[in-house]
Amino acid sequence: MLKEAIYHRPKGNFAYAYKEKTLHIRLKTKKKDANKVSLIYGDPYDWKKKKWTYKKKSMSISASDDLFDYWFIELDVPTRRLRYGFEISDRKNTLIYTEKGFYPNIETDDISYYFCFPFINPIDIFKTPDWVKETVWYQIFPDRFANGNKKNDPEKVLPWASEAPALDNFFGGDFEGIINNLDYLTDLGINGIYLTPIFKAYSNHKYDTIDYMEIDPQFGDKETFKKLVDECHQRGIRVMLDAVFNHSGLYFGPFQDVLENQEKSKYKDWFHLHEFPVKDVYPPNYDTFGYVETMPKLNTENPEVRSYFLDVAAYWIEEFDIDGWRLDVANEVDHSFWKAFRKKVKSIKPDLYILGEIWHDALPWLEGDQFDAVMNYPFTLAGLDYIAKEKIDTKQFADRLSKSYASYMENSNEVAFNLLDSHDTPRVLTECGGDVKKVRLLYALLFSFPGTPCVYYGDEIGMTGGEDPECRKCMVWDEENQNTSLKNFIKQFIQLRFTEKAFTQGKLSIIQPKKDDYYFHFIRTVEDSSIHFFINPANQPTEVSLDCTSTNHVFNLWNQKKMPIENNSLRIEVPANDFLILKLQN
Amino acid sequence: MLKEAIYHRPKGNFAYAYKEKTLHIRLKTKKKDANKVSLIYGDPYDWKKKKWTYKKKSMSISASDDLFDYWFIELDVPTRRLRYGFEISDRKNTLIYTEKGFYPNIETDDISYYFCFPFINPIDIFKTPDWVKETVWYQIFPDRFANGNKKNDPEKVLPWASEAPALDNFFGGDFEGIINNLDYLTDLGINGIYLTPIFKAYSNHKYDTIDYMEIDPQFGDKETFKKLVDECHQRGIRVMLDAVFNHSGLYFGPFQDVLENQEKSKYKDWFHLHEFPVKDVYPPNYDTFGYVETMPKLNTENPEVRSYFLDVAAYWIEEFDIDGWRLDVANEVDHSFWKAFRKKVKSIKPDLYILGEIWHDALPWLEGDQFDAVMNYPFTLAGLDYIAKEKIDTKQFADRLSKSYASYMENSNEVAFNLLDSHDTPRVLTECGGDVKKVRLLYALLFSFPGTPCVYYGDEIGMTGGEDPECRKCMVWDEENQNTSLKNFIKQFIQLRFTEKAFTQGKLSIIQPKKDDYYFHFIRTVEDSSIHFFINPANQPTEVSLDCTSTNHVFNLWNQKKMPIENNSLRIEVPANDFLILKLQN
Repeated sequence: MLKEAIYHRPKGNFAYAYKEKTLHIRLKTKKKDANKVSLIYGDPYDWKKKKWTYKKKSMSISASDDLFDYWFIELDVPTRRLRYGFEISDRKNTLIYTEKGFYPNIETDDISYYFCFPFINPIDIFKTPDWVKETVWYQIFPDRFANGNKKNDPEKVLPWASEAPALDNFFGGDFEGIINNLDYLTDLGINGIYLTPIFKAYSNHKYDTIDYMEIDPQFGDKETFKKLVDECHQRGIRVMLDAVFNHSGLYFGPFQDVLENQEKSKYKDWFHLHEFPVKDVYPPNYDTFGYVETMPKLNTENPEVRSYFLDVAAYWIEEFDIDGWRLDVANEVDHSFWKAFRKKVKSIKPDLYILGEIWHDALPWLEGDQFDAVMNYPFTLAGLDYIAKEKIDTKQFADRLSKSYASYMENSNEVAFNLLDSHDTPRVLTECGGDVKKVRLLYALLFSFPGTPCVYYGDEIGMTGGEDPECRKCMVWDEENQNTSLKNFIKQFIQLRFTEKAFTQGKLSIIQPKKDDYYFHFIRTVEDSSIHFFINPANQPTEVSLDCTSTNHVFNLWNQKKMPIENNSLRIEVPANDFLILKLQN
Repeated sequence: MLKEAIYHRPKGNFAYAYKEKTLHIRLKTKKKDANKVSLIYGDPYDWKKKKWTYKKKSMSISASDDLFDYWFIELDVPTRRLRYGFEISDRKNTLIYTEKGFYPNIETDDISYYFCFPFINPIDIFKTPDWVKETVWYQIFPDRFANGNKKNDPEKVLPWASEAPALDNFFGGDFEGIINNLDYLTDLGINGIYLTPIFKAYSNHKYDTIDYMEIDPQFGDKETFKKLVDECHQRGIRVMLDAVFNHSGLYFGPFQDVLENQEKSKYKDWFHLHEFPVKDVYPPNYDTFGYVETMPKLNTENPEVRSYFLDVAAYWIEEFDIDGWRLDVANEVDHSFWKAFRKKVKSIKPDLYILGEIWHDALPWLEGDQFDAVMNYPFTLAGLDYIAKEKIDTKQFADRLSKSYASYMENSNEVAFNLLDSHDTPRVLTECGGDVKKVRLLYALLFSFPGTPCVYYGDEIGMTGGEDPECRKCMVWDEENQNTSLKNFIKQFIQLRFTEKAFTQGKLSIIQPKKDDYYFHFIRTVEDSSIHFFINPANQPTEVSLDCTSTNHVFNLWNQKKMPIENNSLRIEVPANDFLILKLQN
């Protein structure tokens, strides 16, 4: 047994409270090394005749990647206190793995050997909002979605779609445009919209805020925004806004005050200034986002700044009843601020969704006291590498998804913000080289995987575009130029997602692909039924077989046909570049 | 190279901000597998000609245990942002290890491969109080230290030391007794006292509080306590109290109210009651510490309870100017409470020391937002196993200390509360089977190791005692019955500790023992000098040799003799059951 590969450390993603009396425990072992792992566990204070009373329960492999198997158990802990270790066996040996190391036997004279989860305190449990997993998002870049009111167009507005999107052009999209098209979204099945920034700002993307308490006049006013939220809520659509709290824009009042009054500005501690005089030229002599001089980094440690931005966060919830905050460049803002942010916004609206923009491993922000989830770009990139770019095979794809999934708590995985693209990436159809069949497979994956899926505006009708700013074209409203077949496909899939609980509640199992399997197989299980998903990105059909020993009925969910079980098994073809969704009912 | 053994994950103890522009980065590899590791790093936004600009710097092995080497680097990060990976080489191969896995080459077209430390925000840096590492503590169990005032003796007081300590007997120790003996402590070199609980309580140990806002009358009153703190502060002695916030005593007002008024009690949500009527009998029908019915667990999630205990914490700082809080059963109280606790107490007294009682791996409490340190029982147990009980050899001892040291941040290691025993363990002389030579070696280790050492009252004069209550005997004040030679040894060692900065500020290196080495060798380095410590617990002398190529002078610090360097090296004997402390000066 390879001891060096074995890893566990309590809290984080390896041991955490899933519910008030339920722990999730993970263990990492070298891939295919251990063939049985059991948890040895008990209440630390439960002793009889000077011996610790322990129980033993088998764990199972919940995920595997290229190097490791991840063993998992969901455990009831009635007294909420636990000491535990692992009994790990390969074909030859059995070892006991504890906090203090490896031992040949289960020691019961001293519990200090064992790992400790001292107490499940409910307040520390990572609580994420239930509604999120039932939500299908639609991301809108407001200047480019729909122009509903010509009167609020910015000065240099261009006729809709008359030019390619550029870093500095404007097309006049606004709130009324969104309101006018809410029925379009409802028809598609959308029940959440995520708006990139809407506060008064300089650029077309609005990530360079001028005033966090005002709506950008090109989008409308507060009354229109209130109407937008109300109209959404009437249709059961949630609304998420973009909080750009890492940096302001150059024209943010306090920064302008600094430029004007320099050392004497009362806002000089709102930023990270390197020297005086502060000059708004490149290279900046103050901290910025990247090296962008028009985006001065905010000093969120300063109690005034902190209080101002907590007020901003509260204001848009209290006054406009928004349902989520997406946090821009969330990883560069201090943890201390985000902890205060969570407390504040959850005290106002306990089920508000907090979504961080973090592209890398984000556990330090996903331990229950900061964000609910992050934008799941690891999912995006793995999906694109597998299906769009054909850079990785099924095994590598399964490894990457599994590894990423095992690196967080279920509490957060259940509300992971899954996406295929955004205003910050090329569009999915472009990534697929225009191959709609690939796009369909990626959507099949997106809508079936645990988490909350997001459609980037216009993807559903086949819009294209490379890196920013190309991915920010004007929405195509003329049906003749829309890919209505793709739209109908997406609509049908979203409907299916809402009819089957397993899509939103089902526990995930990723099936390890066998050598030469070129299809990806995963299962979502809920109570007495499970849904099997087969994604076949290959240019040839493949036959799959399912053991149906304990299954009474099998349905093909896509065409609603009942499938014949023969000799307790089912053999069925997955066509080339296609997928199959089978529901197995006990 | 064994990929499965290689581990790094940002934040926690593997990548953390040591100072405002300084990161500490660790990497774990299989022991003796890699022979060179370099950090590849750069500002994530620093690109030239579409290539990321990176630098490379060698890491070194800072610790090793039975399975792993721990590579370490202290890195200046002027822009406070970092992406990084590791170049790991063995004799045959070189691999690049990143967040996404292993690669043959350093990729510079996409930084998303790399690990990310997005920004060092000063507010998130783990700040621990400077004075702690300069402190030598003395732990006092007040009923047993000295009786200075017969008038406040408890009702059933026994004559001093007239009986063996029992679970329920009292000997009348009090604050005046401590005040009267402060000069004794000062003479010994003590500059910090840690008092086990002093608030009004039922038992002799006072861990079953009746009133958190009152002094137990058997110890004195608030005026006497004020005098005690003042007298200590005048002598440069800090004072730490014991906060028992996990549970109260049975006679705590709110719990008595529950027993009296049951469902109608306004305090019913102060505890975790399972059912009504609540009965104070065994087995308890409410959550307790362990299964002890006289210690009902407090519901620190209840805002009223939280506010009450934050007020308690503040009161004894604001009114009495105490310098530290030791937190009893700290691991079973919610993290949320401790985060609020830290904010509260540090806002009143920024350099207050917060010490948690946690016996197991405590990283989740030592990330900068809860405790400064924990009681270092892993150090205690390793030391006893090595020297007192001779259960492990030097290699195993070095492994255990190294592993424990590498599992925390330096910020916390520097103020680790190191101890040989306490009111919760047998006394060190008893653990050593009465062998004072062993006790001396353990103290040599205690006073030389990074962290802040604590002497349990009476250990210095050779008191004995097994498990609680035996370890809580009355202090022996009659010099004829004191081991004055041991006391003088401890006094001399403490003096030495104060004269050499390396004892408190020196960076630690643990030297990997060679096969058959039965002495333990470690180094503390500060600027241009380093102190080498040799602990030889064997019954035979051993000869050690030191490379003195870049050394001008070597002093034996214990006898203040200058040592002769010959041919750039020094050979010297460490006597049996003895130690050697050499200062090498450039």
